[in-house]
Amino acid sequence: MAGNSDAIAILGGTGDQGLGLALRFARAGRPVVIGSRKLERAEQAAAEVVAKVPGADVVGLENAEATKRAPLVILSLPFEHTAATLKGLSEAFEPGQIVVSMAVPLATAVGDGAARTIGVWQGSAAELVASLVPEGVRVVSAFQNVAAHRLMDLDHPVECDVLVSGAPKDREPVMALCALVPGLRALNGGPLGNARIVESLTALMIGLNVRYKLPEGCGVRFTGLGD
Amino acid sequence: MAGNSDAIAILGGTGDQGLGLALRFARAGRPVVIGSRKLERAEQAAAEVVAKVPGADVVGLENAEATKRAPLVILSLPFEHTAATLKGLSEAFEPGQIVVSMAVPLATAVGDGAARTIGVWQGSAAELVASLVPEGVRVVSAFQNVAAHRLMDLDHPVECDVLVSGAPKDREPVMALCALVPGLRALNGGPLGNARIVESLTALMIGLNVRYKLPEGCGVRFTGLGD
Repeated sequence: MAGNSDAIAILGGTGDQGLGLALRFARAGRPVVIGSRKLERAEQAAAEVVAKVPGADVVGLENAEATKRAPLVILSLPFEHTAATLKGLSEAFEPGQIVVSMAVPLATAVGDGAARTIGVWQGSAAELVASLVPEGVRVVSAFQNVAAHRLMDLDHPVECDVLVSGAPKDREPVMALCALVPGLRALNGGPLGNARIVESLTALMIGLNVRYKLPEGCGVRFTGLGD
Repeated sequence: MAGNSDAIAILGGTGDQGLGLALRFARAGRPVVIGSRKLERAEQAAAEVVAKVPGADVVGLENAEATKRAPLVILSLPFEHTAATLKGLSEAFEPGQIVVSMAVPLATAVGDGAARTIGVWQGSAAELVASLVPEGVRVVSAFQNVAAHRLMDLDHPVECDVLVSGAPKDREPVMALCALVPGLRALNGGPLGNARIVESLTALMIGLNVRYKLPEGCGVRFTGLGD
């Protein structure tokens, strides 16, 4: 792998949620690689991070190039572009890399509403991702329930639990990422198949955002776990 | 309807979660009707409520009789008995009654684990219930995510949000019930179809209870909604 072992790549890092994570990780001092289909958009997003986090170690690259630069690759793509994008990246991945799926199969992918999901043959977007990455690449799901606007608002913590699902050894580095963002708490979300519940929870939360008029988005906390 | 218009009927009120709700509603001063397949078990449960809540207005009856005694009928049955029980009660319901589904299609119904669900043809247990009640009977889903042990522990509040899903007019009296239990907060859970997400969330929470060793059960809160 060409990149820094501390680096975090975010494909689709030009969208609100990906850019929000990029800002938070950069502010925590981690090198960030923003990937996009278009180099120019990736570079723009990187410049936006530097403008908001002076001194940030961030670079914008095309998705394939970004994928090669970090041991952790977060997918922050619209669900409907996830499969096609992954198929185009098969040469870019290396065994041992961890891919983080934050995709949610919202029904917007088929022109229906954002407060609903569509069924995914593999069970969840995360399992779809797992079916498409090259052998030896590990998949973990996380961050599906974290509101983009809350991530972007660097002056406030993000009051949200993050359910991290996947194989135990693979979950650990992803759970550690959550500690970089004030307010986020990583929870052991069990096996990757649980992503189907976590993903659908996002649709429920989008419905709450609409019904309670929360343009910034709600978060979720589980109670009774101690601190 | 034969009963008190303030009464709350709980079918399957001899199980932990139903009994927990019975205790809480009785303590809040509401008349409670506990239903069971067997009269004797219903009477035992009613006696248990009176023992813990002196002066409680509670009675134990067979399910069909209990159904006739209250405008609100909460179903606290194991999922696998829900359909058969409802089919046997078609004569007991009256148009205008509200049935509250708290059923979760846990995979235990087919001998698999409690941290997973099985698919329900109608979309959710609540929609299955809606397909089986007589015309004019309204169905709302609620309380699926509330831990039985927390309800039973009368000395402490239950730190949990309750997503109440159904038609707007029908949701209101069910949301009002939540105010009877310290700690519970009712949230507008949107249309009944959303129950499929809320139900699956229970399976996720059961998994958290196992992984984090929480015999009393966790709860869920949504953040960013104001108070």
